[in-house]
Amino acid sequence: MTEFNNVSIVKQANVYFDGKVNSRTILFADGSRKTLGFMQPGEYTFNTGAPELMEILAGELDVRLPGSDAWQTVKGGESFDVAGNAEFTMKVRVASDYCCSFLG
Amino acid sequence: MTEFNNVSIVKQANVYFDGKVNSRTILFADGSRKTLGFMQPGEYTFNTGAPELMEILAGELDVRLPGSDAWQTVKGGESFDVAGNAEFTMKVRVASDYCCSFLG
Repeated sequence: MTEFNNVSIVKQANVYFDGKVNSRTILFADGSRKTLGFMQPGEYTFNTGAPELMEILAGELDVRLPGSDAWQTVKGGESFDVAGNAEFTMKVRVASDYCCSFLG
Repeated sequence: MTEFNNVSIVKQANVYFDGKVNSRTILFADGSRKTLGFMQPGEYTFNTGAPELMEILAGELDVRLPGSDAWQTVKGGESFDVAGNAEFTMKVRVASDYCCSFLG
């Protein structure tokens, strides 16, 4: 069971798409930040600020990455990178648990 | 913005009802434990082990507490206690963010 230790967590959820996507912000001692989130089935477009590493912990979705027309299937245990200042879309087919790391 | 500091968080979500209810486990240095969770609209029955304090951070639901036939409305900013080793039911009317503290 993986844990993040010696972190701070923001009590209030981050809520998107009427709560169909929700996450919690985790703050690390080195100043870095991740969110742990959960997505209901549905289609969601997000815009990045910093580049992101999206780890799908469980579930299944298709993602269309910035600058691509192709959809790529991602399942629990897999991950993908998203460029900064870009838009990407996920079609979540099975409710998905994720960890998003904000890079750079 | 309330934060919990110097805690551990379990990376993987706790998933109930096909993910319509999901939560993250927070472990405190004193050995106590809370979950931060999020519920989609729907009706959910849970069984407690330890007694629980349920703080509704946002949203709206009706709860039927153990030993009661009455439904009580609870909104963001309100909370309720649930006895240990008991069953309670929530009818979530507006997607709800919560903090559950396990007592005793």
